[in-house]
Amino acid sequence: MSIFEQRFAKAQELLAANDIDAVVVTSSPNFFYFTGTWLDSHERLQAVVILKTGTPTMIVHEMAKEQVDPPGCVDRVFWKDGDSSIELLAKLLPKKGKVSIDNQWPSGNLIKLMTLSQLTFVGSDSILGALRLKKDNLEIKYLKYSAYCADQIMDSVRKLIKPGITEKEVAREIERFFKQKGVDQLSFDAIVAAGSNAAIPHHQPGDKVLQEGDAVVVDMGGIKQHYCSDITRTFVIGEPSREFKEVYSVVQKAQDEAVKAIRPGVPMKDIDKAARSIIEKAGYGPYFTHRTGHGIGMEVHEEPYLTPTNSRLLEEGMVVSVEPGIYLPGKFGVRIEDIVLVTSEGAERLNNYPRELIKVG
Amino acid sequence: MSIFEQRFAKAQELLAANDIDAVVVTSSPNFFYFTGTWLDSHERLQAVVILKTGTPTMIVHEMAKEQVDPPGCVDRVFWKDGDSSIELLAKLLPKKGKVSIDNQWPSGNLIKLMTLSQLTFVGSDSILGALRLKKDNLEIKYLKYSAYCADQIMDSVRKLIKPGITEKEVAREIERFFKQKGVDQLSFDAIVAAGSNAAIPHHQPGDKVLQEGDAVVVDMGGIKQHYCSDITRTFVIGEPSREFKEVYSVVQKAQDEAVKAIRPGVPMKDIDKAARSIIEKAGYGPYFTHRTGHGIGMEVHEEPYLTPTNSRLLEEGMVVSVEPGIYLPGKFGVRIEDIVLVTSEGAERLNNYPRELIKVG
Repeated sequence: MSIFEQRFAKAQELLAANDIDAVVVTSSPNFFYFTGTWLDSHERLQAVVILKTGTPTMIVHEMAKEQVDPPGCVDRVFWKDGDSSIELLAKLLPKKGKVSIDNQWPSGNLIKLMTLSQLTFVGSDSILGALRLKKDNLEIKYLKYSAYCADQIMDSVRKLIKPGITEKEVAREIERFFKQKGVDQLSFDAIVAAGSNAAIPHHQPGDKVLQEGDAVVVDMGGIKQHYCSDITRTFVIGEPSREFKEVYSVVQKAQDEAVKAIRPGVPMKDIDKAARSIIEKAGYGPYFTHRTGHGIGMEVHEEPYLTPTNSRLLEEGMVVSVEPGIYLPGKFGVRIEDIVLVTSEGAERLNNYPRELIKVG
Repeated sequence: MSIFEQRFAKAQELLAANDIDAVVVTSSPNFFYFTGTWLDSHERLQAVVILKTGTPTMIVHEMAKEQVDPPGCVDRVFWKDGDSSIELLAKLLPKKGKVSIDNQWPSGNLIKLMTLSQLTFVGSDSILGALRLKKDNLEIKYLKYSAYCADQIMDSVRKLIKPGITEKEVAREIERFFKQKGVDQLSFDAIVAAGSNAAIPHHQPGDKVLQEGDAVVVDMGGIKQHYCSDITRTFVIGEPSREFKEVYSVVQKAQDEAVKAIRPGVPMKDIDKAARSIIEKAGYGPYFTHRTGHGIGMEVHEEPYLTPTNSRLLEEGMVVSVEPGIYLPGKFGVRIEDIVLVTSEGAERLNNYPRELIKVG
């Protein structure tokens, strides 16, 4: 059985187990997962319809005919501008029953489909989510390599950070470094946040000029062979304040403890708690304003999420970020992030760039 | 009234006119349209809820607190990881009635919201779509400047195209040219398609080395001040074949006729027909495999679409692409695309790069 036949078979098992009649696959990563073709048709419908039994069908615009090369186990249907692609999709679905819809499908399409059918619709967590939650060996290989490249780039970034350069200039260099490594697309626009901007977790790089004493948060990632990297380090230019050193060591400890807590069978929220309790004990609880981590794969943020309330259990093969932070408004912020693989016995860090405080400039 | 108050008032007028009780605004462009803040929270909910009357409410993650600066006429609510943002949204909506959902909102969220409420949901065409369909003077100013930059870059690209360079190298230079113009993000990954690849309308640039005799389709755009450009030209390296020259002149004529047909009150499909009938008469009908054009604004593809079946009428202030093409599989392809503004009397091209056949190399 090819990898695609295996994935289809697994999807059909999940359909049966969840008593769902079909799943509609539309997003680029999910489409790639089942067809081996990465296609982004923007607003034009691209889909794979998988019924409980029988051959799956791929629907794409005829313009993409030469771009798709689906495995032999997939039927194919083409449509053209002027056709109603949603009507076409409706015809491929059962007349009644329950259909799982790709969570990422734009709602406007689902609402149109709802007017054309008597079906009940559910999200895709139990089918596509469940499939992609645990990475197979090939996926792990790609994620490791992607993380390895990000580590190397972080070292190039470290050398850039000095008084006089702007956040935006550093961000542009980051993009260039990734391109040099053959990465065509970033996982997300790099975050370079210096001085008091570092207190904004998702700050967009601006014209702020880096200067002596600034903390500099660098959060970046690239997509290599369709698999994402995502790493954060916080540097300091020159001599850090006592407060900064204290905060840094709290974040570093929180990150370490969270990684140590990772092993199969542990609830996600316990990992969040491992990090959060260190930060709370040090008195910075209100300044850790986000979850501890997220799954990563073909998408930079995907299930599972390490939040304070997620009671799902960790399983071998999951890959997550661990990225606690402390953000003191108007002053500075610190975040340290690595990607971590859940192994049979615990955790393996895929990022290995030093986590100790690095003074630069 | 500020621009935002005007837009909210107009949205509330449309809600009343369409007998809809509220609209949920979620996508980055729509969020920007109402708040002046461009925010991409990825999977984390960001929304503006506009009820038929009263003050609109913005919902964002507390992490983005420092990034959003909504106008004074908007209430604000913050949530944090671990909260159910969808439950929060449900509480802000009416208990019963009809709610318009941003077409771009991921279906997984809508399905969750459906389980929490007794509401009827409709898409956003009649509210957000209707608002953004016609550009105001400020938007037109941005679109003109964005197109002007793209014209200039096309001339730099022309100088690059010669035997020996690869499609991918040209695509990377295109990105660099846009960055030099202060464009942080492309409208889409540039298409550079040479030789027989030019017969694939949305070809992804590869390692193909350009050579004497190749047709080269270059389709590119950048996002300047949140407004997109999108232009296509087809160059030829050296002396073109007779067949290529004929196809080129057919496409050029089709594009000209379509632009000439544009004026308020004409159905979209008539513009498509103006282009398509020229191509059909020349015997190439089956090789024009896509619609004639699309709206453009903060999104590179948005309503209205110039398809063979769209009977919506053109209105002053709409901005569309006009981009017929002919694709001969295994041989070559030709596409010519300009952005065009619908004026009170007809059409104004926003792109002015020459459309005559240009031999390069």
